[in-house]
Amino acid sequence: MIEKEGSMLLARKDIKVFDCTIRDGGLVNNFHFTDEFVKGVYETCVKAGVDYMEIGKNNSPTIMSEEEFGAWNFCKEEDIRRIVGDNNTDLKIAVMSDIGRTVKEELLPKSESVVDMVRIATYIHQIPAAIELIEEAHAKGYETTVNVMAIAKSFDGELDEVLDVLSKTNVDVIYIADTFGSFYPEQINKLTEKYLKVAKTTGKQVGIHAHNNIQLAFANTIEALTYGTSYLDVTISGLGRGAGNCPMELLIGFLKNPKYKLMPVLKFIEEFIVPLEKELDWGYSIPYMLTGQLTEHPRSAMKARDENNTNYRDFYRSLLETD
Amino acid sequence: MIEKEGSMLLARKDIKVFDCTIRDGGLVNNFHFTDEFVKGVYETCVKAGVDYMEIGKNNSPTIMSEEEFGAWNFCKEEDIRRIVGDNNTDLKIAVMSDIGRTVKEELLPKSESVVDMVRIATYIHQIPAAIELIEEAHAKGYETTVNVMAIAKSFDGELDEVLDVLSKTNVDVIYIADTFGSFYPEQINKLTEKYLKVAKTTGKQVGIHAHNNIQLAFANTIEALTYGTSYLDVTISGLGRGAGNCPMELLIGFLKNPKYKLMPVLKFIEEFIVPLEKELDWGYSIPYMLTGQLTEHPRSAMKARDENNTNYRDFYRSLLETD
Repeated sequence: MIEKEGSMLLARKDIKVFDCTIRDGGLVNNFHFTDEFVKGVYETCVKAGVDYMEIGKNNSPTIMSEEEFGAWNFCKEEDIRRIVGDNNTDLKIAVMSDIGRTVKEELLPKSESVVDMVRIATYIHQIPAAIELIEEAHAKGYETTVNVMAIAKSFDGELDEVLDVLSKTNVDVIYIADTFGSFYPEQINKLTEKYLKVAKTTGKQVGIHAHNNIQLAFANTIEALTYGTSYLDVTISGLGRGAGNCPMELLIGFLKNPKYKLMPVLKFIEEFIVPLEKELDWGYSIPYMLTGQLTEHPRSAMKARDENNTNYRDFYRSLLETD
Repeated sequence: MIEKEGSMLLARKDIKVFDCTIRDGGLVNNFHFTDEFVKGVYETCVKAGVDYMEIGKNNSPTIMSEEEFGAWNFCKEEDIRRIVGDNNTDLKIAVMSDIGRTVKEELLPKSESVVDMVRIATYIHQIPAAIELIEEAHAKGYETTVNVMAIAKSFDGELDEVLDVLSKTNVDVIYIADTFGSFYPEQINKLTEKYLKVAKTTGKQVGIHAHNNIQLAFANTIEALTYGTSYLDVTISGLGRGAGNCPMELLIGFLKNPKYKLMPVLKFIEEFIVPLEKELDWGYSIPYMLTGQLTEHPRSAMKARDENNTNYRDFYRSLLETD
């Protein structure tokens, strides 16, 4: 049985609020955000006291089409600097590296970049490539995290082995990532215990990246934090792939640290999210619930939403079909 | 420290899924549901294996206007029978009594009514009247519950005293009611422990009625059930006052008892909820989050939603204003 860390009424110094609005939101609109929008998120994060902002992915233009995707799928140094300048603030800038889409030689040395952290997203079968990238980014001077995806379908004791291997790398933070939005708080509790056990013996920290498919993104995030998880991924108004993420405004309301401010987040929501809600579709809905309950990737649900398909019984039947 | 009851993978015999779609949903449209809609909910509950359906309130027409409110604010015997006939099913029928709005002499003996349960909603200052009504309903042959409202603002040890007094009545179930939608799972855990302690020594059971103001209705419901709460209030698609309730479809997805079926609920959502969503406004939004975070009644947020007011900063400032 794992112990609670701190008290609901007090601030905890290890907590980091981690904004992924542009990166996870980019999965909704292929990273086609205006500079004004990205600057808005940046300024909101600075004013709200948020600790990190993930500004996009650093996919290689040699691998993905720059015509199909917007700038924040590539995060070139000049694009980031157009938004954040030299970033003389307390907010740290992160980018996400997808294994197989990042070319590690393209990573600048930290001394030449305004980026502070590289977050490595990996499936279990890609772990050796992930370790190479962790070590490359670490050697070049970056903070690093590793987000092991699709763990809800990892085979039996496989996850223990993965955590053991990762604990021997130079990675700073290991993330609990709920790729299918399928975990219940009880399961997050057990994962928190498992991840922290490895992290504590090797001087690393634990993070959580939740999805809202079964309306538990916020609940799972506070479950993880209550039991010692430090890095907490959020997006403004939950903007993110499919059912979206843990909303920044809910987490800030829960945390008692006066460093975090709600008013700048409300300003961004008024000015940018209210109009965006008329154009883009994200957030909880029945198709996401169904894929979440069945621990399936939400891509079929995203398709159903795109097609305004509300024939939920047929959709459910199609998910239940077996060979 | 309270112990878990059962396992996530197994069914628990004490669990009762309690539908309040018409009763809590009636607070959104002044109980103006068509018979077709109410029959739809009834048939859905029967087919989905739901244990109770609360069909409305039994306010007295001598106290509230029958012109302003629809039939389900009064629940006359003939109106209920028009929907459920003699209700020869396993589904039990409940009505809610608001203290001060129900005239206890108007309550028929159970032998003359198709209603199985009377649920008494009370504020702490109305407890003596609530006890009278509990005993009247019990004496007339009904199952009874008591839902003590606004406990998030109860003074210090007052709630312990209330629970002690209620434990000496003939009430069958004592409900944890999250009137302001302000509780976090940690707090629900403590309330569950407190309520169960009283209930277990007096042969009563505990229920939970959650609201979704801070996206925790479902999370709080499963937290309560995991630690021994038996009666679980839900509404289809969360239809209910303000930010709404714990969605039936999410709870059924969580429970592993094959008695509960998801497909009939999806059918109702397709046929009745999808069109209703274009007419009625309910569910999580920023104004409800703000009243929830501040432990305020959502009525100001309901007004902001009615007026399509998205000036969230001004709304927040108005909530923060002090004398």
